[in-house]
Amino acid sequence: MPNLPRRKSYSPIELIQGIQSGNRTLLSRAITLAESSLPHHQIQAREVLQALLPTSGQSLRLGITGAPGAGKSTLIEALGLKLLEKGHKLAVLAIDPSSQLSQGSILGDKTRMEALSRHENCYIRPSPASGHLGGVGRHTREAMLLCEAAGYDIVLVETVGVGQSEYLVRSMVDFFLLLLLPGAGDELQGIKKGVMEMVDAVLVNKADGENRLRAQASAQEYRLALKYLTPATEGWKVPVLLTSALEKTGLEQFWQVVENFKTETKQKGLWEKRRSHQLLEWFEQALIEELKTRFFQTPSVQTLLPELKSQISQGQRLVSDAVEKLLNHWQKPEESTGG
Amino acid sequence: MPNLPRRKSYSPIELIQGIQSGNRTLLSRAITLAESSLPHHQIQAREVLQALLPTSGQSLRLGITGAPGAGKSTLIEALGLKLLEKGHKLAVLAIDPSSQLSQGSILGDKTRMEALSRHENCYIRPSPASGHLGGVGRHTREAMLLCEAAGYDIVLVETVGVGQSEYLVRSMVDFFLLLLLPGAGDELQGIKKGVMEMVDAVLVNKADGENRLRAQASAQEYRLALKYLTPATEGWKVPVLLTSALEKTGLEQFWQVVENFKTETKQKGLWEKRRSHQLLEWFEQALIEELKTRFFQTPSVQTLLPELKSQISQGQRLVSDAVEKLLNHWQKPEESTGG
Repeated sequence: MPNLPRRKSYSPIELIQGIQSGNRTLLSRAITLAESSLPHHQIQAREVLQALLPTSGQSLRLGITGAPGAGKSTLIEALGLKLLEKGHKLAVLAIDPSSQLSQGSILGDKTRMEALSRHENCYIRPSPASGHLGGVGRHTREAMLLCEAAGYDIVLVETVGVGQSEYLVRSMVDFFLLLLLPGAGDELQGIKKGVMEMVDAVLVNKADGENRLRAQASAQEYRLALKYLTPATEGWKVPVLLTSALEKTGLEQFWQVVENFKTETKQKGLWEKRRSHQLLEWFEQALIEELKTRFFQTPSVQTLLPELKSQISQGQRLVSDAVEKLLNHWQKPEESTGG
Repeated sequence: MPNLPRRKSYSPIELIQGIQSGNRTLLSRAITLAESSLPHHQIQAREVLQALLPTSGQSLRLGITGAPGAGKSTLIEALGLKLLEKGHKLAVLAIDPSSQLSQGSILGDKTRMEALSRHENCYIRPSPASGHLGGVGRHTREAMLLCEAAGYDIVLVETVGVGQSEYLVRSMVDFFLLLLLPGAGDELQGIKKGVMEMVDAVLVNKADGENRLRAQASAQEYRLALKYLTPATEGWKVPVLLTSALEKTGLEQFWQVVENFKTETKQKGLWEKRRSHQLLEWFEQALIEELKTRFFQTPSVQTLLPELKSQISQGQRLVSDAVEKLLNHWQKPEESTGG
């Protein structure tokens, strides 16, 4: 598409007001701003986010993972339509580490959830096409805050089980769902180790037609496995349910589980506890990430580093000596700039 | 033991000369100094290490891992005595992350390798009882340099397969050995994922008496599994050998493998390449560790951090805003101290 007109750029104030009035175009623009790595975009994005922070945080954050082919998009569409019927406003975000390699395997195309994407109370945001996983995580967290400020009361974060993406999603949602296919016992092997211990519910999907019996057997097996695992949420018994996105069965029952989870964990104070913990964890990671970035971008570090590395790799300089030299040299010029 | 006489403290010069003349007491004292977290000990340790650096690096560094019960100490004793007979000087170090929990499961007691520990050309150093894994790794690397400067031409680093300790050992040795027990096929499951891809040889130990046939079957199975794995050392075919520390069989053959490995990788330049890579990796880790330590020890950071954390966890402050504030505030006072 050549000769695209240059897009109007909006001021932080315009973006804030637009998001508060539910303008989806301005919501998208604000998310794009937060995703940008340009410093002046980052300053504007922080201004928008800071202003909207008091009105964020009010949604139910639901994570979904499952291997490609487990039927995530069909399930999200069926569940999403049900939630829209109930009067909810739904935002769907994606964390897709594979998109950097393969140009996106999920949500690259809104047509994948056609009925949802046409609904006025649903906002679908594809995964950012670039950025390392840490960046993707930060962007998704900020997109979530912006969606909440725009009035979306359910935010759904979808991921494929690639790399560390499940940890990332678990670290930003209230309720985490694992979607599986019915199958033989050896499927238990196919689930990445540790994922079963991260989730709050397991859905055996495509439990329809000839698959129904197999799905029941699989569910039984997962229930057995879960008995021996520590649940991700203290005191919560992880249920294994059957669903069919095709026949639209099990969805109502699943939503009841989510509602129960919310009530129970709010009563016990676990809901708020998890949210606080997630924020502090995010803070710590972001802090160290930024500290490293600034350190390695310092001109004196960039000047000294190559020579120190060369001396170290040739066995001419001690590692701890090089560390001392680099860190002392780094702090000193700044100490003396005023003198 | 009450009323221990206060130990004489040695100057860096005394330690350097003592180590160069092969004094084991002074070698031990220098290692203790390197293990200390006191800043003035660290300064002295660096002086000693820096002076000895040119004479270090000349040993063959051999790592051994294996579950408790695989017979590591018996094997090290049998192999060690063989190497001493050949005229080598042998140092045995340990990385034992479990020792922080359980007061040491390996090398806590020299009597475990009695004949070795009595030999004048063998130096055994138990695992430090404290310090996080990163610290243990650094201390072991520095202990290795000191042993090399003292003339030990084979340094053996032993670990139990706990946590990340295998990665740590792999990152500091030239040749890495996995010790296994003979057993049924399901033993393959018991080996931690990824360990098979880190090693340069597998020994099926205790291949004696009634175990011999089982050991042969196990070895065959491991050979099969290795066919599908990428070797840790480019172009090296990881051999699976049978040994019996009890009957002292297979040790000569194993040592021949190590010698072949050394010749082959030195010819191809892979030996030096790995050493350089290990040093740079160590440098990078130590640098980031020290950067974080200094940052979090800064008084202004310690003052600001609690309030920022409290604001973040209550949803009153944006994560990226807190990161900015903390890092800017941290750098500014230093910039202005001279003015």
